[in-house]
Amino acid sequence: MEQEFESRLLENAVNGFATLPGIGRKTALRLVLYLLKRPEKEVADFAGALTRLRSEIGYCRECHNISESEVCPICSNPRRDHSTVMVVENVKDVMIVERTGRYRGVYHVLGGLISPMDGIGPQDLEIESLVSRVRDGGVSEVILALSATMEGDTTGFYLYRKLSPVAEVSVTVLARGVSVGSGLEYTDDLTLSRSIEGRTPFESSLSK
Amino acid sequence: MEQEFESRLLENAVNGFATLPGIGRKTALRLVLYLLKRPEKEVADFAGALTRLRSEIGYCRECHNISESEVCPICSNPRRDHSTVMVVENVKDVMIVERTGRYRGVYHVLGGLISPMDGIGPQDLEIESLVSRVRDGGVSEVILALSATMEGDTTGFYLYRKLSPVAEVSVTVLARGVSVGSGLEYTDDLTLSRSIEGRTPFESSLSK
Repeated sequence: MEQEFESRLLENAVNGFATLPGIGRKTALRLVLYLLKRPEKEVADFAGALTRLRSEIGYCRECHNISESEVCPICSNPRRDHSTVMVVENVKDVMIVERTGRYRGVYHVLGGLISPMDGIGPQDLEIESLVSRVRDGGVSEVILALSATMEGDTTGFYLYRKLSPVAEVSVTVLARGVSVGSGLEYTDDLTLSRSIEGRTPFESSLSK
Repeated sequence: MEQEFESRLLENAVNGFATLPGIGRKTALRLVLYLLKRPEKEVADFAGALTRLRSEIGYCRECHNISESEVCPICSNPRRDHSTVMVVENVKDVMIVERTGRYRGVYHVLGGLISPMDGIGPQDLEIESLVSRVRDGGVSEVILALSATMEGDTTGFYLYRKLSPVAEVSVTVLARGVSVGSGLEYTDDLTLSRSIEGRTPFESSLSK
């Protein structure tokens, strides 16, 4: 890349920001000029936080969620239900589900979805480790909590075929349906159809 | 602030990004998760670039533009016209004017505009240093290249009153007018009025 700025230091910092997703060179320059006006300690702390983030956070040996220890706090928590494994696409999905405070099982982070268009096959994801985790026993239910997209459905189907031969495990998926607080007129047809097919006894809706 | 994430390291990095202008906590988390997947060296280089940026870049003693040396490359360049000083709001404006490649004079960076609403008065800006720079002699023209906003006009008027008593200096402003390549229908009324008042001989438009 051609050097745009007089200062190599400025150039390097702008290039660093500009490699981040969704940040172009104009925004990168704006951020760099902002940092130049901040106290030196604040910038050093920020830089230190980034270095430590990358060097000290790893991935849980069990579920592949990010973790500062070899086994993450969720997997090492004896009060969680280790017989229920929720399969999610990425680390962010774990945070989203944890925020609901309603799930007491453990997770398995795939690290993506099968997507032939993007050249991502089963071997690029944490699928083998999920299969052997289930095969090792102790898991009674695998909940597929993947995106309701073509890639999510493809991945879900692939996992179902891999996991269903393991006799003791039941594979379930998240319910699709009308959003809580939303009216029928704001629900797309496909979701509405699925929510009709998947209708539940009225009493069960009261207990939520 | 309440801790949102399990990991303190993650929390710190997200907080760091979220203090940057225009970056909310959702975007900050996205950037942090992206960095977690990058090679450790790349993240360390980025962090290093930020630290060095802040610790090694200073401001030019003459024009207050950012500079790695005590006097910036523009001010120390004998081939620039040191009798013409363009007054700009900030460092970015210097870059923008330099990019045109048409200006051979030097700069004076105010570091902002007078804005009573934001509590920014003349004493918060590099105005005294501009006045003494002009008073020291050798400057024949001061070009006010400030935003066409109320703050820009207020600041320009203040500077004009400060500088005009210095007999040898002429104070000029950038021409306001129709953008090159733009039609009259896309020009607001005020700009159009100004461009009519400031009309120039046809021959002079040919030489540009």
